[in-house]
Amino acid sequence: MDKKVYVAIMGIGTVGGGTYEILTKNHDFMLKNHGIDFCVKKVLDKNLERIKSFGIPTSAVASSPDEIANDKDISIVVETMGGVEPAKTFIEKMLLSGKSVVTANKELIAKHWPALEATAKKGGAGLYFEASCVGGVPIIRALEESLQANHIKSIVGIINGTTNYILSKMTEEGVSYADALKEAQQLGYAEFNPTADVEGFDASYKLSILSSLAFHTCIPVSTVYREGITAITKADIKAGKELGYVIKLLAIGKKNENNVEVRVHPTFVPENHPLASVSGSFNAVFVNGDFVDDLMFYGRGAGARPTGSAIVSDVVYAAKRTKPLYTDFVNNGEIEKGIVIDTDFTSKYYLSVSVKDAPGVLASLASVFASHDVSIETVLQHGGVGGALVCFLTHSAKESDIKASVAEIERIDDENKVISLVRVLS
Amino acid sequence: MDKKVYVAIMGIGTVGGGTYEILTKNHDFMLKNHGIDFCVKKVLDKNLERIKSFGIPTSAVASSPDEIANDKDISIVVETMGGVEPAKTFIEKMLLSGKSVVTANKELIAKHWPALEATAKKGGAGLYFEASCVGGVPIIRALEESLQANHIKSIVGIINGTTNYILSKMTEEGVSYADALKEAQQLGYAEFNPTADVEGFDASYKLSILSSLAFHTCIPVSTVYREGITAITKADIKAGKELGYVIKLLAIGKKNENNVEVRVHPTFVPENHPLASVSGSFNAVFVNGDFVDDLMFYGRGAGARPTGSAIVSDVVYAAKRTKPLYTDFVNNGEIEKGIVIDTDFTSKYYLSVSVKDAPGVLASLASVFASHDVSIETVLQHGGVGGALVCFLTHSAKESDIKASVAEIERIDDENKVISLVRVLS
Repeated sequence: MDKKVYVAIMGIGTVGGGTYEILTKNHDFMLKNHGIDFCVKKVLDKNLERIKSFGIPTSAVASSPDEIANDKDISIVVETMGGVEPAKTFIEKMLLSGKSVVTANKELIAKHWPALEATAKKGGAGLYFEASCVGGVPIIRALEESLQANHIKSIVGIINGTTNYILSKMTEEGVSYADALKEAQQLGYAEFNPTADVEGFDASYKLSILSSLAFHTCIPVSTVYREGITAITKADIKAGKELGYVIKLLAIGKKNENNVEVRVHPTFVPENHPLASVSGSFNAVFVNGDFVDDLMFYGRGAGARPTGSAIVSDVVYAAKRTKPLYTDFVNNGEIEKGIVIDTDFTSKYYLSVSVKDAPGVLASLASVFASHDVSIETVLQHGGVGGALVCFLTHSAKESDIKASVAEIERIDDENKVISLVRVLS
Repeated sequence: MDKKVYVAIMGIGTVGGGTYEILTKNHDFMLKNHGIDFCVKKVLDKNLERIKSFGIPTSAVASSPDEIANDKDISIVVETMGGVEPAKTFIEKMLLSGKSVVTANKELIAKHWPALEATAKKGGAGLYFEASCVGGVPIIRALEESLQANHIKSIVGIINGTTNYILSKMTEEGVSYADALKEAQQLGYAEFNPTADVEGFDASYKLSILSSLAFHTCIPVSTVYREGITAITKADIKAGKELGYVIKLLAIGKKNENNVEVRVHPTFVPENHPLASVSGSFNAVFVNGDFVDDLMFYGRGAGARPTGSAIVSDVVYAAKRTKPLYTDFVNNGEIEKGIVIDTDFTSKYYLSVSVKDAPGVLASLASVFASHDVSIETVLQHGGVGGALVCFLTHSAKESDIKASVAEIERIDDENKVISLVRVLS
C-alpha cells in the first residue's frame, strides 16, 4: 500500500539541491518508514550546470512553471528560489493547480502570507513553511502541533545564523565587526551584500512569522522594531563581559493580554541564560507558555542539509495529510481587533556615554536619568585622555524614557555623546 | 463549525488534575484557535477529596471504567493513573470501545507498546503518548512529524528530572547524595521510594520509547543497559570538575548501520556541551540526524502543568486527526531482523583506583590497561594516609576491555580497589 508521490523543485540552489539530495539519498528509508515512494519528477532552474552538479538528470528539467503546474502527476511543489518575485507568481500558479507548496521563503511568507493562504484555499492545496524559520529546527511544527494548549507569553530567539556567527567571532576572538563579517563572507555564511542579515531584516521576517503563529494573530513584518548589528563594537562586547553578559542579535516577541511587542535588536544576554551559549551558526528559540513554562529549541539555523531536512519534513507531512493544513488566523492580513503593538516596550538598558572628565558630570547624567524615571543599577566609569566613558546599566525602563534621556544628555553638553545603547534581556 | 469533543480523565492525581485545569482554563482559547469545544464529561478516581480539590463537579465522577467506555459521547480518554495495572486493562477497554487514548504512562508504553498498538488498531482508535517522555518537551512529535527525512544517528538526553535535580544540587552546592535526595523528597521532586528514578528505571523506559521511534525498530526496555546514580560521590563530582566535566544521568541511544546501543548511566559531560548547563528539574534531549545534524530540545521534564501541556497537545492532535495515528513498526514487539543491540559499546572512561602508596604501582596499573587495549589520556594522582588515589581518563575503549581491566587491577593486589567508574561523553 505504498503511496507514490511526485514532487517538483523550483530553484536548484544550495537548499534546493540539498532537498533533492535528501529525497533521493533517503528515498528507500522514507519508503520503508513512512510508506511513501517519493519521485522528483521535475525541477525548474535556468542554471543547467548547477542542476547537473547535483546529479539531477536533464530529462527532469522543466522548461517553464506551467509545465509543472500542468503535470497531473505532481502533487507537491518545493519552492527554494528565494525572494518575492518570481517565486510568488510561480507558487500561486502551483496552488491554483491544486498542488501543495512547501517553501523555505521567509521574505515571501512574511510579506504575503494572507494572500498566499487565500490562494491555497482557493486551489484546495496546502502551504507549508517549516523551513522558512530557523533552518532544521522544528519550531513551526512545535507551535502548531505541540503547544496548542498554551497561551504563548514570549518567544525569544537567535534566529539568524550570519549575525550569530559574526557576534560569536567578535566575542570569542576579539576581532572587529568588519573582520568578522569578512571571514563570514569568505566561509559563505554571509552574502556579498550582507544587508538582509546584518541589518536584521531576515530576523524580522522570521519573527513576524513565528509571533503570528505563537500569538494567533497576524503580526505584519512592518510592525517589527528592527535594529542590526553593524554598530556593535569590541568595546560593547568587553563591557558586556564585565557585567556578565554576552551580546546576541535577539528576536523578541511578547504577548501580555492584548499587548504585543515584536523587536529585533542586539541584546545583552545574561551569561548563564541557555541562549548565551548558542554559538557560531547555531540558532535557538526560547518559548514560554502559560502551562508548559520554558522550552528551548536548538539547532542549525541554515545550510543546505538542515534546511533541506525541514523542507522534506514538510513534504512528508503534506503527503500524509488527508486534507491541507491552513493557517486561518492570518487570512485577513491584519492585526486582530483589540491587539495593540506596543512600540514603547520596557527593558533593561546598557548605555555608554562619552563625557568630558570634569567634576559634576556623573551627577548631571544621573539627574537626567532620574528626571525621566530611569533608575540606574550599575555605573562603570573609565577615564581617558581629555575625557571619560561612563557606562550605565539601568533597571527596567520604558524605551521612550531612555530615548528622551539620550536626547537630553546630548543636549545639555556638546561634549556628551551616547556611544552605545544595548537592550538587556532580563 | 466548532467541533464538540467529550473527554474523560482516568486518574486525578497531580498530572490528571493539571490536565483538567488546562482543558477548563484554556477552553475558550482552544475553541477560538483550534475550533474545538472540549468538555471533560467524566473522571475516574477513587479519591473524591482530590477530585473536589481540582474543582471537578462530583456529577462528573464515573463509578467504573465501563461507564466511560459505554459513554457514546466520549471520544478521547486521558490516562494519568501510572503503573501497569489497572491502567493497562482500563486503556484496552477504552481502545476497544473506539476511544482514542492519550497517556503519560512511560512504564506501560515501554513494557506493552506493541500489544497496545494492536488493541488500538482493533478498536479503530489512536494511542498517543507525547507526555510519557520528558514532560512538556515535544520530543515525540518532533521524532514523528519533524525528523521524518533523517536517519537518526544518536539521541542523548537528560530525561529524568529527579536525578538531574539531585546531581545539580550535589554539583552546585557540594552536598552529598543522601542530603540531595532528602531535599528532593521534601520538595516533591523525588518519591518516598525513589528507586524508579535514582536507579534509572524511569529513564530506561523513556529511552526505550524514544529510541524505538528514532531508530524505527522496537527497542525493548529489557535491552537497555541501566545504572543509577546512588553510587555517585562528592569526590567523583570534584574530579569531574577538575577534568572539565559535569556529571549527568544520561540516556544514550546510538545507531550505526545495524548496530544499536541503548544505555542509561551517570556520565561526565564536557562542560561546554549544551547538555552540561541543563540544571535542576530541567530536561533536554540532544538528537543528531544525518541531514539535520545536531538538535536540542530543552524544557521541564515533569510537573503537573508541563506534562498536562503535553497531554492536552495530544488531545488536540487526536481530536483534529481524521484517522488515528499508528506506530506500525513496533507491532511485532521484537527487534527488527538484522538489528543488533551492542552491549559492548565504546566510550571514554573515568576511573578512580585506590592503591597502596608504593613505587611501581602506577606502572602496574598502566600495564594492565595497556594489556587490555585501553589507552590513557590523563592521569591524576592524589596522595593519602597509607595509600593513594589514582584517577584515569581513558581514550575511547570497549566496555568489555574496561571491565576486564577493572577485574585484573583488583586481582593483582588486594589493596587495589576501583572506587569509581564513570563513562565520559565525547
